[in-house]
Amino acid sequence: MNFFFKPSGIALIGASANPLKGGFSILNNLKIGFDGPIYPVNPRYEEIDGLRCYPSVAEVPDPVDLAIVFVPGSRAPEVIRACAGRGIKGVMIESGGFAEAGPRGVALQETLKDIARETGIRLWGPNCMGLVDAKRGYVFSFVSGVIWEGGLKTGETSLIVQSGMLSGAFLIDIMTHGVMGISKVCSIGNKCDVNECDLLEYLIDDPDTGVVGLYLEGIADGRRFLDLCRRSLKPIVVLKGGQSARGAAAAMSHTASMAGDAAVLRGVLDQVGVTMASDFKEMMDICRTLAAFPDVSPQNPGRMAILTYTGGAGIVSADFMEREGLPLADLSAETTDRLKTVFPEWMPVGNPVDLWPAVEQHGADKTYAAAVAAVADDPGVDGIFIHAFTGGFALNPDIPGLVKTARAAGKPIFCWLLGRREDARQLQIEAQEQGMPVFREIGRAVVCMRALFGRERTNAVESGDDAAIPDAAASELSGEGVLDEHRSKRILSLCGIPTVSETVVSTPRDAVAAAEQFGFPVVLKGLPPGEVHKTEAGLVRLGVADAGAVGTAFQELTAGMAGRGEILVQPHVSGDLELIVGLVRDAQFGPCVMCGFGGVLAEAVGDVRFAAAPLTMAEALDAIGRLKAQRLLDGFRGAPPVDRDALARILVRLGGLGLAFPRIREIDINPLIIQNGRPVAVDAAVILSP
Amino acid sequence: MNFFFKPSGIALIGASANPLKGGFSILNNLKIGFDGPIYPVNPRYEEIDGLRCYPSVAEVPDPVDLAIVFVPGSRAPEVIRACAGRGIKGVMIESGGFAEAGPRGVALQETLKDIARETGIRLWGPNCMGLVDAKRGYVFSFVSGVIWEGGLKTGETSLIVQSGMLSGAFLIDIMTHGVMGISKVCSIGNKCDVNECDLLEYLIDDPDTGVVGLYLEGIADGRRFLDLCRRSLKPIVVLKGGQSARGAAAAMSHTASMAGDAAVLRGVLDQVGVTMASDFKEMMDICRTLAAFPDVSPQNPGRMAILTYTGGAGIVSADFMEREGLPLADLSAETTDRLKTVFPEWMPVGNPVDLWPAVEQHGADKTYAAAVAAVADDPGVDGIFIHAFTGGFALNPDIPGLVKTARAAGKPIFCWLLGRREDARQLQIEAQEQGMPVFREIGRAVVCMRALFGRERTNAVESGDDAAIPDAAASELSGEGVLDEHRSKRILSLCGIPTVSETVVSTPRDAVAAAEQFGFPVVLKGLPPGEVHKTEAGLVRLGVADAGAVGTAFQELTAGMAGRGEILVQPHVSGDLELIVGLVRDAQFGPCVMCGFGGVLAEAVGDVRFAAAPLTMAEALDAIGRLKAQRLLDGFRGAPPVDRDALARILVRLGGLGLAFPRIREIDINPLIIQNGRPVAVDAAVILSP
Repeated sequence: MNFFFKPSGIALIGASANPLKGGFSILNNLKIGFDGPIYPVNPRYEEIDGLRCYPSVAEVPDPVDLAIVFVPGSRAPEVIRACAGRGIKGVMIESGGFAEAGPRGVALQETLKDIARETGIRLWGPNCMGLVDAKRGYVFSFVSGVIWEGGLKTGETSLIVQSGMLSGAFLIDIMTHGVMGISKVCSIGNKCDVNECDLLEYLIDDPDTGVVGLYLEGIADGRRFLDLCRRSLKPIVVLKGGQSARGAAAAMSHTASMAGDAAVLRGVLDQVGVTMASDFKEMMDICRTLAAFPDVSPQNPGRMAILTYTGGAGIVSADFMEREGLPLADLSAETTDRLKTVFPEWMPVGNPVDLWPAVEQHGADKTYAAAVAAVADDPGVDGIFIHAFTGGFALNPDIPGLVKTARAAGKPIFCWLLGRREDARQLQIEAQEQGMPVFREIGRAVVCMRALFGRERTNAVESGDDAAIPDAAASELSGEGVLDEHRSKRILSLCGIPTVSETVVSTPRDAVAAAEQFGFPVVLKGLPPGEVHKTEAGLVRLGVADAGAVGTAFQELTAGMAGRGEILVQPHVSGDLELIVGLVRDAQFGPCVMCGFGGVLAEAVGDVRFAAAPLTMAEALDAIGRLKAQRLLDGFRGAPPVDRDALARILVRLGGLGLAFPRIREIDINPLIIQNGRPVAVDAAVILSP
Repeated sequence: MNFFFKPSGIALIGASANPLKGGFSILNNLKIGFDGPIYPVNPRYEEIDGLRCYPSVAEVPDPVDLAIVFVPGSRAPEVIRACAGRGIKGVMIESGGFAEAGPRGVALQETLKDIARETGIRLWGPNCMGLVDAKRGYVFSFVSGVIWEGGLKTGETSLIVQSGMLSGAFLIDIMTHGVMGISKVCSIGNKCDVNECDLLEYLIDDPDTGVVGLYLEGIADGRRFLDLCRRSLKPIVVLKGGQSARGAAAAMSHTASMAGDAAVLRGVLDQVGVTMASDFKEMMDICRTLAAFPDVSPQNPGRMAILTYTGGAGIVSADFMEREGLPLADLSAETTDRLKTVFPEWMPVGNPVDLWPAVEQHGADKTYAAAVAAVADDPGVDGIFIHAFTGGFALNPDIPGLVKTARAAGKPIFCWLLGRREDARQLQIEAQEQGMPVFREIGRAVVCMRALFGRERTNAVESGDDAAIPDAAASELSGEGVLDEHRSKRILSLCGIPTVSETVVSTPRDAVAAAEQFGFPVVLKGLPPGEVHKTEAGLVRLGVADAGAVGTAFQELTAGMAGRGEILVQPHVSGDLELIVGLVRDAQFGPCVMCGFGGVLAEAVGDVRFAAAPLTMAEALDAIGRLKAQRLLDGFRGAPPVDRDALARILVRLGGLGLAFPRIREIDINPLIIQNGRPVAVDAAVILSP
């Protein structure tokens, strides 16, 4: 991909001398920043603004390995063929009129794809704003020249964006504000060939990139995307547009009905250690925070010391920490003693540390320096949050000195800043250059801290559960649609998933015999082929208490099925807790497992977690550990704690089943009952694709 | 209170000629903006900067009804006595050294209180930053003169703040940014006399105030505060600092253990229609939004039309709307037809409306004007959210025209703005002056829309349930501590709260007779005096199935109580749903009722709501309607829907009990079982104060 990012020479096809055209803006931006040869191509000009203009790309001299194309969509195919003929390796098509513009555009875009396949040329776009590389000064984009106004502000964050706005309007906004910088911004447009995965693969090895932020509306190849995220040593932040809460409309299982885009996405991104953002500037704030502290261990719990000049902001900061699950540090006795040396004698030392009375006695410089030094040395403090003000009264601590102290101690330091407009902006820019992210709102600062300290991921590659799927299970996977409960559980059982004992019976006498063997009470179920909602169909008899009742239930169920199905007898399992686990095949991420609470909790709060298969035991345990109501797993109302390993093993094996058999569309184990801490599948359905 | 807000003349006690002193800054600010006579008082000067300085307040001539005091704490008592002697009505004590500064300061502050009580003089502060009134140009504060830099920016929002930061650093920040304006900012400091209620009472009738925002760490008189909020026709926004999630440590009932500050506060503020904010600038953003649209009906559902120039921001806006529960408008066929006139033919019209292709064809001015006009006329659209950009490319719609169109149709209009730094600021200021709030982040814009449209409150004054508490109930309220289950339920039953049938028995034979009368299975409970955790003490036998089992249970329970208590027999009630309701006495808000889900839901997600007593039926129904898992009330798994009126009546009556009998410390009904849709108290405890 280097021909896109560092081309030896660029042909600009559709170059224009008309300042209202994109072909002019691109040329202008190339002339300002590109350090290689630029070859405008347009048969209508001999030269544009002093540069020789070529009638066609065939006539462009070497070196040239990248073409930027800004011509009407209908002309794109011939132009790209010409580029391929000229030996150009990559084409960035920035003009529109393709898949975003109705059926004719869709067809045109398919033609481009075909050409790329035939010729091996790589296509970036179409309908995109190309590339901005602030470090190299490359603007391969028709973005307004305003972007150069304050010089391109550089940073460690690179973006891959599926919205031109983020490399146009948004980029001009952040560039002219000068507070956040960037490394590369890649606008992928319709991504007919080069997609977010190709670019992510490039950027995770790019030495100029510290953090990758992505704005995506769809993910082209979810499994490759997850693999890249796993592989990346750099933090990745995703803002996903279009997160419907609704599950798939045609879902047959409970699992599938819970599998809304947002829930699956949240699960799989957590699984691979990706941070999610919800708004554009928030994404940038999180990225610049992660970029500022690349060495924070994912295990760091983030115990924060808050140093404030105003009690109110200290309290609000602590409230946000509690909300985000970030702990306040317990300051050591030594730290407290050191702080007392600058405190008035009547004032107790707490955390948040209110420095104002000390500032009044000793000035801001001495007080802040002493306080940051004290908490930086405290082994119980993982990070420092200072509150500052600039302009207007004597509260100008030596910010560079504070940052140096914190950095020397290896403690991330953050700043919430108020101040006179220009002063505040200057201080914000300077402090950030010195390595301290500065925020204008407390809540945003804490969200970014949380992103920095909450990135623990279970990066283990070993599965921890290597049970192979036996041939016997495979041979049960015949037919299509919903397999009946008995067959579904036989498959699960063969894969080592614990299921309730049961017997299929064909006479009342066999039913009674089975019931007596299990012990009363028992459950009788009718299993007509293809019926997934037995309870609603009146085909379940719970708590059948004696032989007479078994006989009655048998007759009723047989009648209810009009002679079509079988009768199942099971012991009546009552447990401490009801879970639902399952497998679903996500359009973007392939087979994903689900784990959640059943019964009233499933209905009321939808407390479920998803993870992509294959998953390691560690990942399965992590998904379980993210259930909101997970304290129920630790022994609810005196029950023994749930065997999380056993539960995780079920998820790992469900994932394995889904991977091994693409024909399995959904699996639902509902309920998975916890009895004496151990999970057992009491009802289940395996659903096959036609 | 007019002598604080519009004094005829001001004595400044502790005036100083030293620019480093607060007494100088106050004088400077008075001289810049106060339009009445100013009398510096300080025996060390004859004059300060051209103003005659008086040796004591006694010598100050008329007119003077306000003194601003900036002297060391130890001198405050004599000074305030002198003020009272001089006939001054109000004193604003801005210096510190009082309750915030250790035990000696606490004593000093008590002395001030005594003086106020004796003399009738009103004290504002101490340890505060006084008053800023941007509309009058009054700065009765030692805040830095920087605040005047751009002129005081006025707005309709008045603030009452318990942190000097908000009328110092924060105010300088927002004043110098020039984007948000204010009316009055009242810094209440230690509020030894004048408190947030006094000021709120003033401001809700103040013609210069459209919205009141409060930052509070404690509420002095919660019940008066709620009454004022109910009475206010102006929106009120509260940011509460210090919201611990933990309940009272010494709680005896489940209700009390759930009654953390945050949960009670959220409940009672929702009850009286107050909006909560979580951060300082967010509070200001919500306030300015509410101030911009004073005429929006609380019933307005807020169906939004989103007009964007970039699909990505449209999608992210819709995601935020879904998260905040704000509906997207369904555009009418007529609106769609009108939009099509500016759309390219291949482009379908949806909501969010992506205007970019139309802008490319017709320009921003025509496209935005046509689109705003079309959605403004649509009766299915309640509000308009436009996305704008300024500086850099041809996207400068006629903002004043758009605002005018929307306002003429009575539709609130909001703007998310990106742009070149100075251009964006200018446009933001201008648009806001024209009546459109402008936001720099989509998420914040949507939170503010939600605050505007989500303010429905049940302002009914009638109770809807006027059952008086009978004397018989009162006579049961003897003793102290936990009343036993039987007596507790008798009290509740006398107040019209449905309770399970039950009989106290003293012999096994009576127990069997009672059981036979109720029908099996039954429940037997031992009631030793003072025991609140019967289940944990092994004193409950559920599902007792026959006469023999009743006898055994009787003997075991009697043995378990060592002969101290009584035995209770009840029918075994099994229901569709388990709730918990109760009463707790909150330190700030007095008797508050609670309603929530019991069993696994209570443990797992703490889904409960509080409301202050007395509450109307409408308020009780509103509290019930805010339970997160309330869909369970609408008929879970085929059960009949819960009789919400019956449930609300229980809450109203619990509140009435708490109000009528201050000795009742807590009431816990746990479980309140829903049987065929009707609630019945199955276990309960009334807890009396010693």
